[in-house]
Amino acid sequence: MDARDERAAPVDWTGPTVGELGELVVLDRVTSRLPAGSPIVGPGDDCAVVAAPDGRFVVTTDMMVHGPDFRWAWSSPEDVGWKAAATNLSDVAAMGAVPSGLVVAIAAPQDTPVAVLEGIADGFRLAVDALAPGCGVVGGDLSTSSAFTLAVTAFGDLGGRAPVLRSGARAGDVVAVSGELGRAARGLSRLFRDGVDASGTPSAAATRASGADEDPDVGRQRRPVPPIADGPAAAAGGATAMLDLSDGLAIDAGRLARASGVTLTLSVHLDDVSLHGGEDHGLLATFPPDVALPGGFRAIGVVVPRGAADLVRGGVPVPTTGWDPYADWDGVAG
Amino acid sequence: MDARDERAAPVDWTGPTVGELGELVVLDRVTSRLPAGSPIVGPGDDCAVVAAPDGRFVVTTDMMVHGPDFRWAWSSPEDVGWKAAATNLSDVAAMGAVPSGLVVAIAAPQDTPVAVLEGIADGFRLAVDALAPGCGVVGGDLSTSSAFTLAVTAFGDLGGRAPVLRSGARAGDVVAVSGELGRAARGLSRLFRDGVDASGTPSAAATRASGADEDPDVGRQRRPVPPIADGPAAAAGGATAMLDLSDGLAIDAGRLARASGVTLTLSVHLDDVSLHGGEDHGLLATFPPDVALPGGFRAIGVVVPRGAADLVRGGVPVPTTGWDPYADWDGVAG
Repeated sequence: MDARDERAAPVDWTGPTVGELGELVVLDRVTSRLPAGSPIVGPGDDCAVVAAPDGRFVVTTDMMVHGPDFRWAWSSPEDVGWKAAATNLSDVAAMGAVPSGLVVAIAAPQDTPVAVLEGIADGFRLAVDALAPGCGVVGGDLSTSSAFTLAVTAFGDLGGRAPVLRSGARAGDVVAVSGELGRAARGLSRLFRDGVDASGTPSAAATRASGADEDPDVGRQRRPVPPIADGPAAAAGGATAMLDLSDGLAIDAGRLARASGVTLTLSVHLDDVSLHGGEDHGLLATFPPDVALPGGFRAIGVVVPRGAADLVRGGVPVPTTGWDPYADWDGVAG
Repeated sequence: MDARDERAAPVDWTGPTVGELGELVVLDRVTSRLPAGSPIVGPGDDCAVVAAPDGRFVVTTDMMVHGPDFRWAWSSPEDVGWKAAATNLSDVAAMGAVPSGLVVAIAAPQDTPVAVLEGIADGFRLAVDALAPGCGVVGGDLSTSSAFTLAVTAFGDLGGRAPVLRSGARAGDVVAVSGELGRAARGLSRLFRDGVDASGTPSAAATRASGADEDPDVGRQRRPVPPIADGPAAAAGGATAMLDLSDGLAIDAGRLARASGVTLTLSVHLDDVSLHGGEDHGLLATFPPDVALPGGFRAIGVVVPRGAADLVRGGVPVPTTGWDPYADWDGVAG
């Protein structure tokens, strides 16, 4: 890693590296900081063993790569760990399941300070304690790579309920969201505007000097707060379809509409960043018209029979496009 | 990627890339080649849903990174997919479980030909069909990175049996192995000797010209054949401890000995490569002295009370050291 002084505080980027300490020492220092949860068998064997009282489990996996997915200049290791946990927990919640465990594989360049891995472990613990208390990191893998990479897999238990799919919305259903819209995207815009040096490169110093570190929207970009408990609540409350808002309300609404063979019509005004900004990890769900919306859900529209568009506002189609990692990443890390 | 003509046949390294085609096209072309298995809910929602009839499931995760873990000059994409599946299925078997599903996250450089991802998917299908028929890839994630990376998570069902841990060996037990010893390591040695150009760089052309492609040991390095069915058979047959032989018999025997608080004594002669060569992914297990060894297990020693060493042969301690990815990778990809 270069430009160590450009990385987000408070990590000591000059401390001992994973290459200097070796796998066993690093593993020990990281594992002791992770949330343990209460698996039947935890780390140390070839597999963990996790309870699945429902007789089924839900599972999701997601990779976060330095460069396309995060910049050390803008996110601390704690932020990166938090976000990796939160985004996967949100996918579990979006099926109507309660998170029951995580496994985490990390590949780090050999010159990565062990403090970075410790910070990531702290981020996992903070996120799990805040968002899914009792859930734990039950296993993992440490490897090496020229590109810092996290791969997280999360599990959940359905508690006897049917999983809530994207495909169950029916004409007449209410369209509802839980969680914030557009805050993470506003935070990212702020970082791209104020958190760069004169050449446009992400810079921790510029971010600090601009005051962006104190911007609550930047905080949400770094540490999204998905409404995890509202996922099982939606399932229990009769949700007919649901998904996690990862790429923006419009594109994710399009996915739900196409999977269900319906059109969604918005009945409330939403500004462009609320419609198209991603990474808030709220929940979009549809409910039968006669049920009380559970938890933090509020109505934003209704489901109508399939028309020419996936999503309509005031009779006008809303574009349902978004981020494509293969086409859109500029190749910069920082 | 550079030096495309140096990569293993039969991939067309000049075909359309993932960056040119975009995520949706790539996802569609890859998913259709993967083994589907029979999940309750498969790819396409925020999570897959997998049956866990036992009320518990086992889970393992492992990352494979271009450079430290594989070289395109030596392994075709099919080989890489096969190995990623086989190594994770082996960890499931080593708990005594039957594989029930896999999720696969892949991060590929934007100039990776889509044929590489298709080949990896084919490798997963071939491995699952050969080693764990009926198991499937139930979900995944596609991302981008400067370093080609696979992260595989595998699950299994214990079928009502207790998981077989590393810690259960008792003095008097028989030490037994199933699967091959040393073949993958002999194959890797052959590649490092004959599969390099004049500067020592891995070279597909040199590998081909030397005849190493026809060496069965090279085949085993590329596509290990772990005895998956012997894992559940060992559990049903009374195994007291078990693990997957990933880093070599000696180092893995040391792990089992320390976890169980015993010493393992070898009663048969094993050459150095059988003792210290990794990546065969056989199974090391201990059984009570009065049981018939199941499946392909054969006795290689006995468990004795904890002495000064983890592993002893003819009264002499056997070193139980091995590969450390942080300390040992030379930083070369190829």
